[in-house]
Amino acid sequence: MKVDGRAMRTLWATPGRDALQVIDQRALPHRLQVERLGDVAAVQRAIRDMWVRGAPLIGATAAYGIALQANVDACDAALREAAASLKAARPTAVNLAWAIERMLARLLPLVPAQRRAAAWAEAEALAEEDVAVNAAIGRHGLPLLQAIAARKAGAPVNVLTHCNAGWLATVDWGTATAPIYQARAAGVPLHVWVDETRPRNQGASLTAWELGHEGVPHTVIADNAGGHLMQHGRVDLVIVGCDRVSARGDVCNKIGTYLKALAAHDSGVPFYVAMPGSTLDRSLHDGRREIPIEERSAREVTHIAGRNAEGEVVEVQLVADGSAAANPAFDVTPARLVTGLITEHGLVAAEEGALRRLGAQA
Amino acid sequence: MKVDGRAMRTLWATPGRDALQVIDQRALPHRLQVERLGDVAAVQRAIRDMWVRGAPLIGATAAYGIALQANVDACDAALREAAASLKAARPTAVNLAWAIERMLARLLPLVPAQRRAAAWAEAEALAEEDVAVNAAIGRHGLPLLQAIAARKAGAPVNVLTHCNAGWLATVDWGTATAPIYQARAAGVPLHVWVDETRPRNQGASLTAWELGHEGVPHTVIADNAGGHLMQHGRVDLVIVGCDRVSARGDVCNKIGTYLKALAAHDSGVPFYVAMPGSTLDRSLHDGRREIPIEERSAREVTHIAGRNAEGEVVEVQLVADGSAAANPAFDVTPARLVTGLITEHGLVAAEEGALRRLGAQA
Repeated sequence: MKVDGRAMRTLWATPGRDALQVIDQRALPHRLQVERLGDVAAVQRAIRDMWVRGAPLIGATAAYGIALQANVDACDAALREAAASLKAARPTAVNLAWAIERMLARLLPLVPAQRRAAAWAEAEALAEEDVAVNAAIGRHGLPLLQAIAARKAGAPVNVLTHCNAGWLATVDWGTATAPIYQARAAGVPLHVWVDETRPRNQGASLTAWELGHEGVPHTVIADNAGGHLMQHGRVDLVIVGCDRVSARGDVCNKIGTYLKALAAHDSGVPFYVAMPGSTLDRSLHDGRREIPIEERSAREVTHIAGRNAEGEVVEVQLVADGSAAANPAFDVTPARLVTGLITEHGLVAAEEGALRRLGAQA
Repeated sequence: MKVDGRAMRTLWATPGRDALQVIDQRALPHRLQVERLGDVAAVQRAIRDMWVRGAPLIGATAAYGIALQANVDACDAALREAAASLKAARPTAVNLAWAIERMLARLLPLVPAQRRAAAWAEAEALAEEDVAVNAAIGRHGLPLLQAIAARKAGAPVNVLTHCNAGWLATVDWGTATAPIYQARAAGVPLHVWVDETRPRNQGASLTAWELGHEGVPHTVIADNAGGHLMQHGRVDLVIVGCDRVSARGDVCNKIGTYLKALAAHDSGVPFYVAMPGSTLDRSLHDGRREIPIEERSAREVTHIAGRNAEGEVVEVQLVADGSAAANPAFDVTPARLVTGLITEHGLVAAEEGALRRLGAQA
C-alpha cells in the first residue's frame, strides 16, 4: 500500500538475493526505517524482537530466512537448524511454523545444489501468494461493507478494528484492512475506529499510520472505549485479524480481541475475522485450552515509547518501581462470538463443518 | 492509608481554615506532591484538571471549595455562583452535585454571619462521613473475600479492579479497595490484578502505587488482558467503583468497566460494584440512555506522561500527527451484569426494588 503516495511492501529481497529488506516497525509511526537482514540470525532477531510482526508477515519473513540459510549452507542439517531457530522466535502464530514447513517440504527432496535457487523462488512465491490471498479476502469482505453502506444513505460505515491486521502485518493489503482498502477504492464512505491495542500499541502506531497514508478517515481510541461505542450504535461492524484459528473456529488474536467480541455480541454488532487459510490450525479443537499464549516482557506494560517534544523517540516508565506487571499477548475468542470468517475462498462460518469443507476447496 | 509507612489522607484543611491541601495526583506514581488550594477558582481547577479525581473525592473537595467561598463572601449569590462553577468542573459523577447541594442546603437557611463556621464544619463532616462510609463498605465486602479464601486453602484470592476506586479516589480507605484493605488486615491472602486503565492510567499510576505502599501483592495488566485471565480461572472476583448508579442499578464507571463486566459474566466470575449511597442517582432509570458521558481531550489518547531515563516526568506522543482520537471517559454497565452492590448499608442487588429499599434504610 502507499507511504507518502508511493507503493510499498513490508519486505522485499535485494536484487542480488543476498539479503532481505524489511520495514523496522518498531520505529513507526514516528519514522519509516528500512533494515537489511543478511542471515538467519538477523531474521530470527527481527521476528523475535518484533521489527516485523503479524502472523502472515512473520511467515513470509521466516521463509526468506530459510532462503538466506540456503545461500550459505543448504544441507539438511543446516536447513533444519535454521528452521528450528526461526520457529522458536514466536510461539503463537501458526503461520510461522506453516511457512517454515512449506519451505522444508519444497527443499529437502531436492539435491543440495538446487536448493538455493528453489528457496528464493519458493519464498517469493509464498510472499506473492500472501498478497493474492489478502486481495481475495478484500474482495470477499467488500460486500459486507457495501451492504451496510446501502442502509446508511451516504453516512460512513463505521468499522472497528483491533491491533494491526493491516498491510504492515502481511506482505501487502492486510487481512482485516483488505476489505476496508477495497471498499475505499469502490467509493464506499468509511470511518475506522482504531483500538490503540496496549501494551504494544500496534493500533495507534501501525494501523492509524497506514490508514492515514491511504487517506482512510479514522479515529484512535483507548482499548476500553469500544464497548461503549457499540452500546451507542457507533460501530457497524468489527473486523479483526487472527494468529491462529482452531478446527471448530475459536479465534486466537491479539489480547483484548475477546473483550470486543463480547461487546459486539452484547450489542448485536457483526464480528468478523479475516482469516487466510494458512492461519487455520486443524490440529487443535478447543482454542482456549489448546492454543499456547505467548507471555511477553512485563516491561511492555510498565514502559512505553513515544516521541518527546524534541522529536526523539524515548521510552518512559508508567508504573511505580516495585509493581509487577503481566503481559499475555493473545487471547482466544470462542467461535460462538464470531459472526463469520472472511477467507480467500469466501465467507465461512466459525463452525467445524464449514471449516472442514473450506479445506476441501483449498 | 499509608504512604512510606505514614498515614495520610487525600485532602485536609489548613489549621487556620484558610486553604485546602490536596495530593496533586497528576504527579503520581513518580512523586508525592501536595498542593495548597486557596480559593474557589483553585478548587475548580484542581477538580477540572484532575489534580483530584474519583467521585467521592471530588465531592469532598467541592464541599471545601464552598467553605473557601464562605471565607470571603457568604451571601446567597456568592455561594450559588461558587456552586455553579464547581458543578461545571466535571459532568459525570453524581457526588459532585450531591456534595455541593448538601452544602447549600446547610448554609442558605443560616444568616450570613453563621455561614463561614458552618461551612467548614459541614465540609469536615462530609469528609469524615466519606471515611466512615468507605470503612463500612470494607466491612460488608470483607466476607465476600473471606468466603473465597475459605475455598482456596491458603492460595491468594485474586481480585481484579479497574481504574482507581482506591483511597486516592476518596478521602480514605477507597470504595473498591476498602474490602481489600480490610481483608489484608484480617490476614486473608490476596493478590490484585490492576487494570492500567487507559487513557489516563489511573490503575497503573494510582491503584498500583497505593497497593504497593500498603504492601498488597498486585500485578499491573493492560486493559486488554482481564478477559483472558478470567477465561483461565485466574480471577476470583471483580470489584470496581462507580461514578453514578441509576435507580435500576445500571453502573456508570470508568471507560472499560463494561467490557470487564461482560467478561466476568461470560466466565461466571462475580462482578461487584462498591457504591456509597451518595453515588445512587434515583432521578435516572436507564443508565445507558440517561447518564451523560464526559468526552475528554483527544490528547489523553495521543500522548502519555511517564518518567524518562533521567527521572523527569515527560509527555510523549504515541500516535502519528494527523490521526484523530476520541476519548469517552465513562461507560455504563447494565444492571444485569452486576452481581451485587457493596454499600455502607450492606450488599444490595442491582435491581430497582432492592435499591428503593436501600433508600428507606438510609
